[in-house]
Amino acid sequence: LGEDVTIKKRIMAPGPTEVPPTVLGAAGQPILHHRTPQFRAIFAQVCEKIKLVFLTKQPVITLAAGGTGGMEAVIINLSDPGEKVLVVSGGVFGERWAKIAEALGRVPVKVNVEWGQAVKPAEIEAALTANPDAVLVCGTLSETSTGVEHPIEAMAKIVAGSKAAFAVDAISGLGACRLKMDEWGVDAVVAGTQKGLMMPPGLALVALSEKGWAQARTKKGPKFYWNLETALKSLTAEKLPDTPYTPNVSLIMQLAESLKLIEAEGMEAIWKRHELLSKATRAGVNALGLKLYAPDSPSVAVTSVWAPEGLEGTAIVKKMRDEWGISIVGGQGKVKTAIFRIGHLGYADRADVLMTLAALEVVLEELKVTVPRGQGVKAAQDVFLGK
Amino acid sequence: LGEDVTIKKRIMAPGPTEVPPTVLGAAGQPILHHRTPQFRAIFAQVCEKIKLVFLTKQPVITLAAGGTGGMEAVIINLSDPGEKVLVVSGGVFGERWAKIAEALGRVPVKVNVEWGQAVKPAEIEAALTANPDAVLVCGTLSETSTGVEHPIEAMAKIVAGSKAAFAVDAISGLGACRLKMDEWGVDAVVAGTQKGLMMPPGLALVALSEKGWAQARTKKGPKFYWNLETALKSLTAEKLPDTPYTPNVSLIMQLAESLKLIEAEGMEAIWKRHELLSKATRAGVNALGLKLYAPDSPSVAVTSVWAPEGLEGTAIVKKMRDEWGISIVGGQGKVKTAIFRIGHLGYADRADVLMTLAALEVVLEELKVTVPRGQGVKAAQDVFLGK
Repeated sequence: LGEDVTIKKRIMAPGPTEVPPTVLGAAGQPILHHRTPQFRAIFAQVCEKIKLVFLTKQPVITLAAGGTGGMEAVIINLSDPGEKVLVVSGGVFGERWAKIAEALGRVPVKVNVEWGQAVKPAEIEAALTANPDAVLVCGTLSETSTGVEHPIEAMAKIVAGSKAAFAVDAISGLGACRLKMDEWGVDAVVAGTQKGLMMPPGLALVALSEKGWAQARTKKGPKFYWNLETALKSLTAEKLPDTPYTPNVSLIMQLAESLKLIEAEGMEAIWKRHELLSKATRAGVNALGLKLYAPDSPSVAVTSVWAPEGLEGTAIVKKMRDEWGISIVGGQGKVKTAIFRIGHLGYADRADVLMTLAALEVVLEELKVTVPRGQGVKAAQDVFLGK
Repeated sequence: LGEDVTIKKRIMAPGPTEVPPTVLGAAGQPILHHRTPQFRAIFAQVCEKIKLVFLTKQPVITLAAGGTGGMEAVIINLSDPGEKVLVVSGGVFGERWAKIAEALGRVPVKVNVEWGQAVKPAEIEAALTANPDAVLVCGTLSETSTGVEHPIEAMAKIVAGSKAAFAVDAISGLGACRLKMDEWGVDAVVAGTQKGLMMPPGLALVALSEKGWAQARTKKGPKFYWNLETALKSLTAEKLPDTPYTPNVSLIMQLAESLKLIEAEGMEAIWKRHELLSKATRAGVNALGLKLYAPDSPSVAVTSVWAPEGLEGTAIVKKMRDEWGISIVGGQGKVKTAIFRIGHLGYADRADVLMTLAALEVVLEELKVTVPRGQGVKAAQDVFLGK
């Protein structure tokens, strides 16, 4: 670990996020064999409770995989090779949908959105009209690379009027940004554990709507590990749920702990907390004279900021991490050095935001950026004080 | 634990302090039987390395006990019932020496110091002159209750000129405040693990000088668990050190980890870090218009602050803990409600100080204290920027 007592390690990135002590501690439990009633009883609880986070009545499939594996599962199960998949591309993760589709022989059709902007529902409508044979529309709840939150509810309404299913990458958004799968009519939601679920990475979660499951049953393309119907059968065949292949037992145990915390806080409160932390972060950054990269549709999970004139975002990130132990991140793709991003999701609280802004003020001054030190913190405090 | 995701738990108290992840993790190791070469090899390393923290060549005795047990061991081993023990009393922990001495049939003679002040070496000199039959002088390195650091080096010089031995309660000071046992000529140093050693409570450490050991051998009062000569024999009789009774194995394993971190940082750097953090904390508090309780001889381990006019320190402490998760503490004894105290020792860094001041600013405003929010943080930043 190379632990340095003088600089504690803190994650203020848009994932992985910090993990609460009780969730960390849950990884220290003995490994239960997964084909036992003991493990399956815990798994049963997890499978029930996770629905509260997705806001769905549908089963949620757990996959021993990173979030990208969950995205691949959605593409593979809801489309066949040669079929058209509409993809909202306005950042690295929207683009990832297209890359997966392309690699697996689907035909991605991109709805290109300017980076830093959210897609307009009308653009989805136009794309569906132009491509009536599209079987799937893929969007992103929180586009981590740009710090944009897309209008999933409005998008879902439009896709619902088409034959296509609507899949949402909620990997970095679930448990931070508002998302009501059933109420909004989203057909596939993918999540990962290392974001709003406040856990280590390594577990992907996928839920399909009735329309989604019906569509999946019509697709005959090759699949094995990602076969969601196989997983569904294991989940529902007997009284206690099971998985077709070995689940990552420790992460399931940790998810059980994390879900206790999520249930105790409640989804509405969780969303409000993220709204508050992001509002305070934006206020702080603005008060320092910095410019937001996505001012019009900022994600509540991550705040993206233009690096000051003449400075690379990576320089700020490096000093924050090396000298303050605070892991914020730079940009990705074409804004790799132009922006930096502060995550405030999952296990993050108000003190984290104040600390991050206070350290950022020092770092900026050391990088010869003139900032009104103290004022970034004060602006965030104002938000917390309801001013 | 009642973990609350919205308010992370952070300790900014003068002990117990936060524990680094690698040290916490060391408690998860299997319990080694203590009478094995495996455990004793680890114990041997711990017994050697701990000397670097005490700055002594003498053996350091570990006792499965709280710090107060270590103080009792010093009284019991370096004095006999009926003998005079001079005690510097200017706070709860100086007073504790007197209480122990009294309870065990010694004759405590107090050098009373005004709370919030350090003892003047001349006062020790006068007390020794008035009590030439005193066998022991007991002082406190960092008087946690008042936030005062006593002039141990100067005190040691004076006591060295007498027949008495000089014992220092360094429980909350070791690993934070400068202390050079051998060079300064301190005869007994007591420490605990839950302070500068960045560990859970439960282990006391006692080192005696040659003069101390010689004096201990002349004392015949009843003792068993606290008998330091017995412990010394176990420590040195064989090639690998041992303890007369069962040691707290897990804490020894954790101490091994903690000492790695301490060795990596180095004592001079550790002292400087505490000097920096305490200077920044005092600057921040001053900038908010609050008054320091011990401005003349502040401890680098803890900053004590007068509660603002009309407000009890406990009200500030409660809001900091309940609404921000930051455990600072109120006063003790006669200043229980008049002051509050911020600890910045052990596993504490600059971001902790900025965060604490930022939260304190909000709490004070909510308690209707007019403070220039942002300015406390800025003053601390100034210190970190070397301004």
